[in-house]
Amino acid sequence: MPLITLLTDFGDRDPYVGVMKGVIAHICPSARWIDLTHQIPPQDLYAARFHLQVSWRYFPAHTIHLAVVDPGVGSDRRGVAVHSAGGYLVGPDNGIFSGILAESAAIAAVTLDNPAYWRTARPSTTFHGRDIFAPAAAHLAAGVPLAALGSPIDPGSLHRLEFPLPQRSPVANSTQIHLSGQVQSIDQFGNCITTIPGDWVAETTWQVVQVNHIPQQIPGHDTYAAVAPGAIAACVGSHGWVEIAVNQGSAQAQLSIQVGAAIICTTTPG
Amino acid sequence: MPLITLLTDFGDRDPYVGVMKGVIAHICPSARWIDLTHQIPPQDLYAARFHLQVSWRYFPAHTIHLAVVDPGVGSDRRGVAVHSAGGYLVGPDNGIFSGILAESAAIAAVTLDNPAYWRTARPSTTFHGRDIFAPAAAHLAAGVPLAALGSPIDPGSLHRLEFPLPQRSPVANSTQIHLSGQVQSIDQFGNCITTIPGDWVAETTWQVVQVNHIPQQIPGHDTYAAVAPGAIAACVGSHGWVEIAVNQGSAQAQLSIQVGAAIICTTTPG
Amino acid sequence: MPLITLLTDFGDRDPYVGVMKGVIAHICPSARWIDLTHQIPPQDLYAARFHLQVSWRYFPAHTIHLAVVDPGVGSDRRGVAVHSAGGYLVGPDNGIFSGILAESAAIAAVTLDNPAYWRTARPSTTFHGRDIFAPAAAHLAAGVPLAALGSPIDPGSLHRLEFPLPQRSPVANSTQIHLSGQVQSIDQFGNCITTIPGDWVAETTWQVVQVNHIPQQIPGHDTYAAVAPGAIAACVGSHGWVEIAVNQGSAQAQLSIQVGAAIICTTTPG
Repeated sequence: MPLITLLTDFGDRDPYVGVMKGVIAHICPSARWIDLTHQIPPQDLYAARFHLQVSWRYFPAHTIHLAVVDPGVGSDRRGVAVHSAGGYLVGPDNGIFSGILAESAAIAAVTLDNPAYWRTARPSTTFHGRDIFAPAAAHLAAGVPLAALGSPIDPGSLHRLEFPLPQRSPVANSTQIHLSGQVQSIDQFGNCITTIPGDWVAETTWQVVQVNHIPQQIPGHDTYAAVAPGAIAACVGSHGWVEIAVNQGSAQAQLSIQVGAAIICTTTPG
Repeated sequence: MPLITLLTDFGDRDPYVGVMKGVIAHICPSARWIDLTHQIPPQDLYAARFHLQVSWRYFPAHTIHLAVVDPGVGSDRRGVAVHSAGGYLVGPDNGIFSGILAESAAIAAVTLDNPAYWRTARPSTTFHGRDIFAPAAAHLAAGVPLAALGSPIDPGSLHRLEFPLPQRSPVANSTQIHLSGQVQSIDQFGNCITTIPGDWVAETTWQVVQVNHIPQQIPGHDTYAAVAPGAIAACVGSHGWVEIAVNQGSAQAQLSIQVGAAIICTTTPG
Repeated sequence: MPLITLLTDFGDRDPYVGVMKGVIAHICPSARWIDLTHQIPPQDLYAARFHLQVSWRYFPAHTIHLAVVDPGVGSDRRGVAVHSAGGYLVGPDNGIFSGILAESAAIAAVTLDNPAYWRTARPSTTFHGRDIFAPAAAHLAAGVPLAALGSPIDPGSLHRLEFPLPQRSPVANSTQIHLSGQVQSIDQFGNCITTIPGDWVAETTWQVVQVNHIPQQIPGHDTYAAVAPGAIAACVGSHGWVEIAVNQGSAQAQLSIQVGAAIICTTTPG
């Protein structure tokens, strides 16, 4: 039984997700699906990228990950299907699969330009999820080869939302180590998830010393609950990266930062 | 594998929908289901009618649409199962299937008065979804013929929530055309969806000139975002009807209107 | 097709529930699942206990109920799998299954200490749902015997969240009857669900006369809507127990009570 995951920013009030599943069931009655989330903040490509990256590894190989967060729908952005080491990816070519592809190399990719595998020869200009992406995922589930869905493209040409690799460097004349990275996603509470691996701060005394080039003194703790309500703290989040948060508040608002903001930490071993 | 869609106003906090699925799985283990939405505003028959109408066509033929928005539960309103060109419909006879039936004629209908196909001989007076409707849908999925579920009724006797057909008429001594219709549903943002087809305003200059018999000058735009926050505009919504909305506000509140409000537009070709 | 229900306090914004389903699909591709709710208030064991108790009976025998409301994750609380007359139960041993077990006796139980059936030999300290409980449920679904999942434990040793049985006693020199019980769960609206059976007040005139040892005069009605907005009333809730509620308000806040508060009613027959 082929398995399809769904991730969108459609919410749960309108039947858009249900309609996509109806289209899938029509094309591939044996397909099964799992909802990852439909509560991605509207058009937040970084949140989509992040949630896909932290989820894909828990699914069987050959799972088809169908994701529709698509601010460019109706423009000339491509729709793509990608065969990667971590399964098949179907959705707009806008970078939402970058997190998966950073961990699971693309083997082949096509642009979804074969109307024979669309739901209709005249797809909606606003709902490619229903008319192009769900059908593509369902046809893959039904055994249609990737190459049939459209023209081959260079996997290297896929749009990527990338961050520089985080860096670790000793501080001169000191036992301290500098860690530098960026904010890669901000959740609905305003918690800022960085690219700095949590195991770089394990078993050390650490703090965030710079955010977006402004000096800060944000102490590293095991949990946000260690600080008073309204106070700012850093900790290692559930996905294994350093996060900055305000207990019962929004770090994003308090620090006035966005995805991409530069972060520097220092650690003192022991 | 028989397919059942579910639409209710039960929300997602209590396990009511899960319990209905448990009842279905008990009766028809091979049944599959797709949630359309469980976030219909409480008892909003017009929202249920609207969402069913815009969704049914995307599902395989023979899909069973189970819908429970049921302000009359416990009264003498009938429970019904309907065989229509667009699939099977199961739920209270209160008009929520009117939108589907306007596009997909009823072939046969029964009232669900055969207790042999209820979950229990003494159904709850408040939860027919669990005790009557889910069992009826599951028995249909398991191959029980419609006629076994209860006494036949005239499909013409089904309760309908209907709107007059929208009208188009030339304006004397003018190239303008008058379009008249009604508000058929109001979404959670206060956007008012009319019965006027969007293709009646395509490639024209148009505006809404009367709402509920009060003169207005609401310009037709491609998107709400074309007007300033707080300003009112008309556009063609994603389901293909003329809508009236306030950018970042509520057209329902600003215009003080309800479902059924009369709407008049004028168009000037070219 | 084995059936697994899921109940958590994970909400629907993050893909935690989807990831658990991915883990299940990996281990037992034929498993099916039904979401009971993922909107249990964070760490509210009494709400989890209540919703499981009122739901289990509607599912087929042999259903596997997987529940993860787990404030003690990472502590030494046990993870358990239980074979009961009402199906299999998998989750933390913190009392959330007490309501089911009060109605459906435990036949056998194990602590989930066999790492061969974990997702990984080094489970997360914060997400046993993914690494221990979902795998245990999936292995049961795949036919692994309960006894293989870990060391046997005495079902009598399972942690229980119990309430005294409600009591009914005649009032001396009166036709009245005293009913005493406790608040067993409080819903998101602040409605307080007691342990007093609704059929004890049927066909009587009744009121709540004491809450948490403080005298009250809260009239029993058929529905909360019978009293003015802001007024307090008692009624029999949809699950068959006496509830105390404030119409369009919170009885929990108005009475300043918590789960466990003592409740006394009086009834006058006829």
